[in-house]
Amino acid sequence: MIRHVVMFTWTPEATGEQKAAVPAELAKLPGEIPQIRRYEYGPGINPGNRDFVLVADFDSPEDFLTYRDHPVHRAFIEKCIDPIAADVARAQYVLPG
Amino acid sequence: MIRHVVMFTWTPEATGEQKAAVPAELAKLPGEIPQIRRYEYGPGINPGNRDFVLVADFDSPEDFLTYRDHPVHRAFIEKCIDPIAADVARAQYVLPG
Repeated sequence: MIRHVVMFTWTPEATGEQKAAVPAELAKLPGEIPQIRRYEYGPGINPGNRDFVLVADFDSPEDFLTYRDHPVHRAFIEKCIDPIAADVARAQYVLPG
Repeated sequence: MIRHVVMFTWTPEATGEQKAAVPAELAKLPGEIPQIRRYEYGPGINPGNRDFVLVADFDSPEDFLTYRDHPVHRAFIEKCIDPIAADVARAQYVLPG
């Protein structure tokens, strides 16, 4: 299994509506992209740390790349993430088992 | 459930031995800190992204704090992380279910 982890810091100008759209739209992606095995995300609960986290699991590196480049995923990033992301930290690692 | 996610970027000077000590020492922590429910970590596999990721799950915010401040955990950070960490990104979020 491959785990993809992303942490977002929002811009100071990001509105509550824009921030709320992120989990609302993420909820639709597993129905559109069958390569997603687990998809667990939420707003950071401790001020001073990152604002939002996504943890996504895939069966293989190829499935992760299919997800990464999927048009529905790219459209989500362009619409919901790019306008409010001040910083994005990413990594992928091999999940045991 | 509370999920704690941490991503590390190592310094250019970090040695292979120092980097290998991180997962080797992390493997000991669940045996020492019973509040840890899940503990999944590994080196980042894509150059240009973060170098190491840890995803840790706890039953409650209190259990997370017990872990965070546990002497065994603090000793691990001081010995293995602080000497080689160029950047650390952290967040905690509520895990559904």
